[in-house]
Amino acid sequence: MRRIGIVDLGSNTARLVVYAYEPGEWFYLADQIREPVRLAEGLAATGVLGEAAMWRAFGALQLYADFARDTDLAHVHVVATSAVREAQNRHAFLDQVGRLGLEVSVLSGEDEARTGVLAVANSFSLEDAWVMDLGGGTVQLSRMRQRQFIEGQDYPLGAVRLTEAHLASDPPKKKEIKQLVTEVREQLSGVLESMRGEPAPLVAMGGTVRNLVRAVQKSRDYPMSQVHGFFLRREELDELVDRLLAMDRTERTKVVGIKPDRADVIVAGALVYRTVLRESGLPGLFVSGQGLREGTFYRHFLPAPHLIPDVRSFGIQNLFARYPQPAEHTKQVRHFAARLFDELEPLHGYGAEAARILDDAAWLHDIGMAVGYHGHHRHGAYLIDTGLLPGMTHRELALLTLLVRYHRKGRPRPGHYQQALDNGDRTLLLRLAVCLRLAEQLERGRANRVRDLAVEIGPGTVHLSLFAGDPPRVELVEAEKQADLFESAFGRKLTIGIAG
Amino acid sequence: MRRIGIVDLGSNTARLVVYAYEPGEWFYLADQIREPVRLAEGLAATGVLGEAAMWRAFGALQLYADFARDTDLAHVHVVATSAVREAQNRHAFLDQVGRLGLEVSVLSGEDEARTGVLAVANSFSLEDAWVMDLGGGTVQLSRMRQRQFIEGQDYPLGAVRLTEAHLASDPPKKKEIKQLVTEVREQLSGVLESMRGEPAPLVAMGGTVRNLVRAVQKSRDYPMSQVHGFFLRREELDELVDRLLAMDRTERTKVVGIKPDRADVIVAGALVYRTVLRESGLPGLFVSGQGLREGTFYRHFLPAPHLIPDVRSFGIQNLFARYPQPAEHTKQVRHFAARLFDELEPLHGYGAEAARILDDAAWLHDIGMAVGYHGHHRHGAYLIDTGLLPGMTHRELALLTLLVRYHRKGRPRPGHYQQALDNGDRTLLLRLAVCLRLAEQLERGRANRVRDLAVEIGPGTVHLSLFAGDPPRVELVEAEKQADLFESAFGRKLTIGIAG
Repeated sequence: MRRIGIVDLGSNTARLVVYAYEPGEWFYLADQIREPVRLAEGLAATGVLGEAAMWRAFGALQLYADFARDTDLAHVHVVATSAVREAQNRHAFLDQVGRLGLEVSVLSGEDEARTGVLAVANSFSLEDAWVMDLGGGTVQLSRMRQRQFIEGQDYPLGAVRLTEAHLASDPPKKKEIKQLVTEVREQLSGVLESMRGEPAPLVAMGGTVRNLVRAVQKSRDYPMSQVHGFFLRREELDELVDRLLAMDRTERTKVVGIKPDRADVIVAGALVYRTVLRESGLPGLFVSGQGLREGTFYRHFLPAPHLIPDVRSFGIQNLFARYPQPAEHTKQVRHFAARLFDELEPLHGYGAEAARILDDAAWLHDIGMAVGYHGHHRHGAYLIDTGLLPGMTHRELALLTLLVRYHRKGRPRPGHYQQALDNGDRTLLLRLAVCLRLAEQLERGRANRVRDLAVEIGPGTVHLSLFAGDPPRVELVEAEKQADLFESAFGRKLTIGIAG
Repeated sequence: MRRIGIVDLGSNTARLVVYAYEPGEWFYLADQIREPVRLAEGLAATGVLGEAAMWRAFGALQLYADFARDTDLAHVHVVATSAVREAQNRHAFLDQVGRLGLEVSVLSGEDEARTGVLAVANSFSLEDAWVMDLGGGTVQLSRMRQRQFIEGQDYPLGAVRLTEAHLASDPPKKKEIKQLVTEVREQLSGVLESMRGEPAPLVAMGGTVRNLVRAVQKSRDYPMSQVHGFFLRREELDELVDRLLAMDRTERTKVVGIKPDRADVIVAGALVYRTVLRESGLPGLFVSGQGLREGTFYRHFLPAPHLIPDVRSFGIQNLFARYPQPAEHTKQVRHFAARLFDELEPLHGYGAEAARILDDAAWLHDIGMAVGYHGHHRHGAYLIDTGLLPGMTHRELALLTLLVRYHRKGRPRPGHYQQALDNGDRTLLLRLAVCLRLAEQLERGRANRVRDLAVEIGPGTVHLSLFAGDPPRVELVEAEKQADLFESAFGRKLTIGIAG
């Protein structure tokens, strides 16, 4: 196992993250220290990093250097962005930082944009996208095609900068807002035209959008705790922006989901997003919980072009590796679940997309055993909710969570996950849960006793034949307990017998 | 690591539990199969086990024997209770069971009572208690003194038996209820008199009371998922019994918390508890989630007299062993938390009870790291809620959970845990959380940099001096972030400096 520290020295916030990883295999976040440094304070007006801002940054970096030494972190990689890049006194600043023994890369706007695209390519199941990273000092807007960075540019439209330039009043005045929006529209006019001409999903990253989405999720009691992959609709953003514009800073610090030290600059950032959505004509944006730090990490984790071959499978296996379960049992449950799904296809008619969700659930169904046997279906759902599962939409994530939650008992119901689901998903959930439960019970003794199965679909019944050496009594008894649920899912009685 | 299977062949339910354990060190539940066998069906009327009932039992035991073989479970211990003990045809039944290769102990009423007392002695921090185990066939009522079984007796007042004898109507008629209560009162008159004369906490075990408590917890959105240790007040039970008496069986199956296969006999069991509470004059009862199976397990886990020396410490350490964290860090955080608590005593005035809760929280504060760094304070609270922590009241458990929840960030608030807390616990929580947070931050780099601390209490301030070799910059910066919370907890400003 290796460990690496990555420091993102942004215009607003400095953050050290520590990843534990096995190159190309798995990784997880092992520690984090966040400092609200506000390095870009006054920079736009003066062109230099202010004394106080630099001392805050030295303090944070000293902290990280000490922490690295204390925790035997051999490798710490600092990436600095627009504040350092633009400051006339950057050399003096970097000399001073150099004395702390930290390696610093000052990224160009394009470097930053490329790194953001790498984070998106490795955490979404998207081939093409527009990628937007809004920081304290600047915004990068890039085009990703076939998971590659095609082009991208840096614009001086960061949240701290725009706040200082336009929003002197609190709450901001109409005129100030208008000026800000006009500047955003003008600066981005070229790329906005491209976005209208070449529509693709917009993926947004950075602290501002994460906070905005948290606020939206909290306001509607959203069932999932992940922001990554959430689709923020344009109307939802508009509504939130209206709410924020009516508040002063103190009121904004109290909005659940928004970090208090971001309350003064969040309005400017929110207005940039609102403008981009309005002008591009896109219906909303996907939020990425990953960004510059993760993009930087992937360069260490994987050889060039630093791309995880299948993001979604990687995520599933990464989580499985964290809470390992017997490989043979998992394999058998996946196998039986897939067989049942295929054999029952005439009754359900679902395709590859549903099959994949079922397979993901079969992979992860028992990870809750790492917490305890009692209620391990609930523990598993908890671990999925808190784990990072990239490459999935929130609908897929909701179905996966529910399948694990109901892989043993209880009647599968969407409950408050309904808001992430589509029409018809209630039935889909029920049917997939039945396939998974039967598969699990056919392997109840974990002795590979059932070798194969056959399904015969009759007019009112479905007969499941089990092929086995020794009679699989445990499996038979336990599988038969699923007959009622089977009937309500597929509208036929289930009978189970031992073949031969 | 060893594994043992224990089968409890009761009058109502058969259940196999599998424990993984290291003798005397730790254990956890590894698997479970429950079958609603209803072995005592008709027994009271005929004196023999019925054909159908026996076949259900053979089926379940065959299942367990197969399961044991498939999962390489070398040792399975079957304990049979009143149904087998009382049946005239028990020898024929046991001969048949013997062919499955399972070792069966038919317990006498007193054996059963002793085993129940062992479960209570090892899962509550009580020296003296009345212990009541209500099964399908019989009830045991025993006296525990200094954690020892003193005396106990078996009464033919089990839930299945009383239902068959008295409650023919659905819902039961007033006259039937009266007859049942009269029988209970008469049979228990001697022991009820002793209970009035020698009051001690009543601890109740068995499926009936677990289901009753679940129903009460669900009806008031109780924050904790553990039934063990819950105190069921007499009025709460009365209210639930009134609700159940007004329902027919189908309605009872829909009461959240009550297992459908128990819905027909739960009323009889609930009436026994109501009668015991009314007649004994006790204000309520503690529920034990542990019972015959656990009592049987302790005989394998520990040498005679099979007693865990300190139940509460064992529980904390058992959970810690399941999610191990660096021993040195844990030790230092416990040490600093205790030092801060002691030094601040003039300001808070709390005693040993509060100190112990703080120490428990210091032990377990980081166990959530086993789930992931992000939100590990929340994960820790989840693991405590789902873990088995015996020997604690629900108030202590609520405080522990909240301390772990708030050991890093957020303002400590009881939220919906308030219902398990006393007046004044809001302040207690805040003050203990501050001690724990400071202790955690004084060990932020996990390098043992801070060697010792001193506290000076002034009229409006508290000064904390840190003794260290190299300057503990990380620790200082991170501890200073707790100054606001300190002030709201203790009403004084906190300053921190490096000594010498």
